[in-house]
Amino acid sequence: MDSQKKQLKEYFPDLPFGPLDGYRKKASFDWRLMKLVYDNLKTIQLKHKIYTFMREHPLFKHSDVTESLDEQRHITVKRMYTYNNENFLPLEQIFEEKRVLSAETEALFMFDSSLAVKLSLTFRMISNTIRGSGQDHHYQIVEDLENARIGGCFALTEVAHGSNAKQMRTTAIYVPEKRQFVLHTPDFEAAKFWVGCLGKCATHAIIYAVLISNGKNHGLHTFVVPIRDPVTLKPFPGVTVGDIGEKIGLNGVDNGFVMFDKYHVPKEAALDKLGGVDDAGNYTTPFKDPNKRFGASMGILSGGRVHITTISTAYLQKAIVIAIRYSAVRKQFGPEDSDDELPVLEYQQQQIRLLPYLAAVYAMRVFCNWFSEAHTTMVVNNYMGVDDNAAYRGIEMHALSSCVKPLFGWMARDGIQNCREACGGHGYLKAACIGDLRNDNDANCTYEGENSLLLQQTSKWLLNIWARRQKVTEEESPLGTLSFLLNADVLLNEKCKWNTKQEIVQPDNLVRAYKWLTAYVLKTTYDKFNELKSSGKDDFQAKNDSQSYNAVTLSIVYGENYVLSHFYKSALEFKDPQCRQVLLKLVSLYGAFILEKHLATLYIGGFFSGPQGQLLREGILELCSVLKDEAVSLADTLAPPDWCLKSVLGQSDGEAYKHIQNSVLSYPGALTRPTWWRDVVNWRDYATSKL
Amino acid sequence: MDSQKKQLKEYFPDLPFGPLDGYRKKASFDWRLMKLVYDNLKTIQLKHKIYTFMREHPLFKHSDVTESLDEQRHITVKRMYTYNNENFLPLEQIFEEKRVLSAETEALFMFDSSLAVKLSLTFRMISNTIRGSGQDHHYQIVEDLENARIGGCFALTEVAHGSNAKQMRTTAIYVPEKRQFVLHTPDFEAAKFWVGCLGKCATHAIIYAVLISNGKNHGLHTFVVPIRDPVTLKPFPGVTVGDIGEKIGLNGVDNGFVMFDKYHVPKEAALDKLGGVDDAGNYTTPFKDPNKRFGASMGILSGGRVHITTISTAYLQKAIVIAIRYSAVRKQFGPEDSDDELPVLEYQQQQIRLLPYLAAVYAMRVFCNWFSEAHTTMVVNNYMGVDDNAAYRGIEMHALSSCVKPLFGWMARDGIQNCREACGGHGYLKAACIGDLRNDNDANCTYEGENSLLLQQTSKWLLNIWARRQKVTEEESPLGTLSFLLNADVLLNEKCKWNTKQEIVQPDNLVRAYKWLTAYVLKTTYDKFNELKSSGKDDFQAKNDSQSYNAVTLSIVYGENYVLSHFYKSALEFKDPQCRQVLLKLVSLYGAFILEKHLATLYIGGFFSGPQGQLLREGILELCSVLKDEAVSLADTLAPPDWCLKSVLGQSDGEAYKHIQNSVLSYPGALTRPTWWRDVVNWRDYATSKL
Repeated sequence: MDSQKKQLKEYFPDLPFGPLDGYRKKASFDWRLMKLVYDNLKTIQLKHKIYTFMREHPLFKHSDVTESLDEQRHITVKRMYTYNNENFLPLEQIFEEKRVLSAETEALFMFDSSLAVKLSLTFRMISNTIRGSGQDHHYQIVEDLENARIGGCFALTEVAHGSNAKQMRTTAIYVPEKRQFVLHTPDFEAAKFWVGCLGKCATHAIIYAVLISNGKNHGLHTFVVPIRDPVTLKPFPGVTVGDIGEKIGLNGVDNGFVMFDKYHVPKEAALDKLGGVDDAGNYTTPFKDPNKRFGASMGILSGGRVHITTISTAYLQKAIVIAIRYSAVRKQFGPEDSDDELPVLEYQQQQIRLLPYLAAVYAMRVFCNWFSEAHTTMVVNNYMGVDDNAAYRGIEMHALSSCVKPLFGWMARDGIQNCREACGGHGYLKAACIGDLRNDNDANCTYEGENSLLLQQTSKWLLNIWARRQKVTEEESPLGTLSFLLNADVLLNEKCKWNTKQEIVQPDNLVRAYKWLTAYVLKTTYDKFNELKSSGKDDFQAKNDSQSYNAVTLSIVYGENYVLSHFYKSALEFKDPQCRQVLLKLVSLYGAFILEKHLATLYIGGFFSGPQGQLLREGILELCSVLKDEAVSLADTLAPPDWCLKSVLGQSDGEAYKHIQNSVLSYPGALTRPTWWRDVVNWRDYATSKL
Repeated sequence: MDSQKKQLKEYFPDLPFGPLDGYRKKASFDWRLMKLVYDNLKTIQLKHKIYTFMREHPLFKHSDVTESLDEQRHITVKRMYTYNNENFLPLEQIFEEKRVLSAETEALFMFDSSLAVKLSLTFRMISNTIRGSGQDHHYQIVEDLENARIGGCFALTEVAHGSNAKQMRTTAIYVPEKRQFVLHTPDFEAAKFWVGCLGKCATHAIIYAVLISNGKNHGLHTFVVPIRDPVTLKPFPGVTVGDIGEKIGLNGVDNGFVMFDKYHVPKEAALDKLGGVDDAGNYTTPFKDPNKRFGASMGILSGGRVHITTISTAYLQKAIVIAIRYSAVRKQFGPEDSDDELPVLEYQQQQIRLLPYLAAVYAMRVFCNWFSEAHTTMVVNNYMGVDDNAAYRGIEMHALSSCVKPLFGWMARDGIQNCREACGGHGYLKAACIGDLRNDNDANCTYEGENSLLLQQTSKWLLNIWARRQKVTEEESPLGTLSFLLNADVLLNEKCKWNTKQEIVQPDNLVRAYKWLTAYVLKTTYDKFNELKSSGKDDFQAKNDSQSYNAVTLSIVYGENYVLSHFYKSALEFKDPQCRQVLLKLVSLYGAFILEKHLATLYIGGFFSGPQGQLLREGILELCSVLKDEAVSLADTLAPPDWCLKSVLGQSDGEAYKHIQNSVLSYPGALTRPTWWRDVVNWRDYATSKL
């Protein structure tokens, strides 16, 4: 352990003395050691290497002012190629330690989200798709991507259809005499839209189109399609491609659209490992059931959702570091008859809007590192041909990612907003850097499946399982997310028997309450659905009418249940006793906080009665008041380097006002008269005329 | 009524035919007539005049792209002077119909929030302050402002102190021999900061500074201080003034900071009607209690909070119009075995995240028109010397505005976010215009008092009242917000006796439940505070430790209780029976929706038991399914003209995809290669070197 401590200290030198010292001294644990709950020396080393490279490279200096849309795209592209050229993550390294993948994601998102998104879209997503559904002759494209001779993008969504992929209208008609496909977009509503990296840069696109051969519709298939000439970056004839303009955030990413006007591509454009036409146009597939083929091809997308859990976590991680540090140095009001003011972190209402999210970040970080590792292992096994209960594992991964992606996106959304408000007026400064986190995270709530809709993937699976819950085997749940079903019928008759606030927030008890809650919401949703069916509604209508307070909540509590259990397990296993004790408090706070959102349901279902809800709330407040002294060090554990965090409010020296001063005074033109000052003084020159 | 209908039709011509027709035909009421629940012909006429002027004036064309910070400031200034020059609201008109004030605010915020904020800061807030606390010799300044010869701003907040005004450190030392004040800023932490319009433009500032005379500290006072030369716009010697740079939103407003270096101003700079020094430096005040003087001077600020209720309402109003119209034309999925897709508004989960906010906008709009009128009447009576129970009215207005400002700011925050997500991916387009609403509204949560802190103003007042609730007279509550105290002790023993979902969402019953809830949270907060005191905590600590779930919730439910009752009353009084019926449904949905957030507390307190919470939730869903057919027409009632709404998703013709197409294709450079295309193709030129 001592050599480990020494190594950690090399990567993380002592933090500067200053106004944060008081809280740092109160912490009961070693903030460097705490990193090992989600990092290891390999991931730490990788992040260190990335940060050092960026810090030293002139292209990776943050701009002081918001650049124009075009400038943002330009600098992001230059950073993308420069970073990509370093090859920080050779394949061997991933095989050796799969967690480096999410560590790299974390480091990239700590620096700049647009860069991170562009890297993964231009190079990784398209390569993965080709590896998953392409054939040997497609590997030249992968090699070109690996050498950045071309750049990719991924085009599924159309203007009028996103979630309902089956209704997409871009067609690929096979012409046997030419051995070509003719890609066509009937109208603007069928244009591929929102395609990341297509706006300005991509030379190749993965296009989802309806394959038609010999007059027969074979459903949605993927094609790898040349869009722009890699030498001139001009679109090929028959392709109309462009930029969709500004977005709420992520403006370094050039999202685009494309329309095809009877655009001919060779037969080899089809990524047809899982199904396609032969030269004569006859359809063949290794799958007998076309739905299964569609499912397998869509399954490739689940990696995107797993990735987003890491992204949301990174955003919230940055926001909470900023808000906790600032709350520890911002002083306002104090005891009566005293001129001393207290740090705002001492106030109950400030604690309750920050500390539960601090606990949540730990739960999320621990979870998503595991999740990313589990997914990578699954993908690697797939390439290697290792079965490892792949069918069930894939289904469970799909169900879990379909609810955890929304959960984490929303947790980040709410947490970032709380951080923003907890920083008061100064939180509204662009230089506080919380606004951009919110605007970037916002995309997570709707892309890769609009959150509410995505949750239906999970609830559908769970409802099917409930019907045959007695027969579900362990094999069906290799990730263990269904363990709440064990004795569920007995559990449902249980009532909460804890009668002190300390008891009610014990991790064991919270985990038990969550098991009850998950089973209860599953049962009531199942009953509601069947009741609607009995009243004469068809499946579609019954499903629609059992969403709010039912199926939607079901997917949420199922995901929360698993994340909580996983966090608890990881905390228990952590070796260092000081850290472990704090981690267990974080488990309690996280669990109690998310459970409290379902408090009414606990009463409606009869698990809680009398004042138990009040006890849960008091337990949360007590945990907050204990954890506030650990909060700054917990934030230090999570913090990226200062230059990367960038926020004037959240630097590790705690000198928020000095950084505000520095930022304000160095802002271009801050102290000079505007060039248009005459329009203030001589306004009558223009305002009185009608122009 | 028929002539009224005719007049309305002149102002609001028929809406264009198109995809929204289906829903419009289903509506059971006249969307024009519905406007009269918050408008009248005078306010409609004013808004029409403003919109017509803006629509025709070239300076009021929205830009297609986000302009640079400097360009945003420039265009906003030009619009400000141009608009101000029209004098749309001469004083006589306000006296005649006080509602025109909030109608003007609505129209301005529908067009552009930065313009609206700048107008009110540059001309109105400073004039009001001088009128309230200045003397005759200050009226020249008011006249100069009215003629826009100078421009004002309002400087209270310092870098290190916002809410805790008593700790502000800017000083004004009186020098009798010169009959001057010396303004001084000891360091950057005491710089006046966040001052709207000070960054680039203001020539005069209302400065809050600690008045010191003959060595004695007399606390915070206001001074009207020349900052920049109105002819050159250069700062006067001794004044360091500048811009604080970019913010999350409202970037057309130039927020600034100012520091004084022993800056001398004549004695007449003091706004000393309520207290100040004589020539010799002796302090005199018409108030005997210095706390009262401070209170009276701070009381002037309450107009700002009243104003913000209208602002938040306007933001949510725009967002909900966009989201409802788009949800009615966006189709996705549909019944099994059918290629027909349903508008997403048909889905339960879409309804529940939009329709409660639609109901909320009506409640808010109705409330804030009344609120603004009540406040204006109070101010006018104050000028006129009419007493009208002014002392109690002022206190109640302060308590109510201190909770409704947070309530409405948060309702807009959550509603806008729901609108954003309900619009799916396309909601993330800048051109959807929801992101800007969120970023602009965000300021409402922390300025004019950080929301959570502001709520303490209300709870403090309520807790004092509870102690003597038996003795509270009607006179103490001229606005009627304390009527829930009537028989509160009896009410607290009541239990909910409604056992169907229809019954439980009846407006009468919801109003009754809210009365119980308000009294219950007041009582429990009071008990908690006293329990903490008994356990040995001092007032400060006991207050701090009874905030979360207690005092904070108290202020919220007190405000909600009043807004709900007021909305119910207005709905009942509305003449047209078709409109009235729909309004009563909106009252039910609004009331049930806000009550549901406190569902756990209803159980903890014993008002609800068994499945009653479930019934409330089912009632909400049923109301949503009824109101979805009215939703488009309800949105039409609220909508500003299309050019003003600006959103590609929310135009009245319902042609969202066509507007997206038009916006995307006309975006500058959308279809052309970037000028930096060589940096994509020849990336090795820069990426492989270390620069």
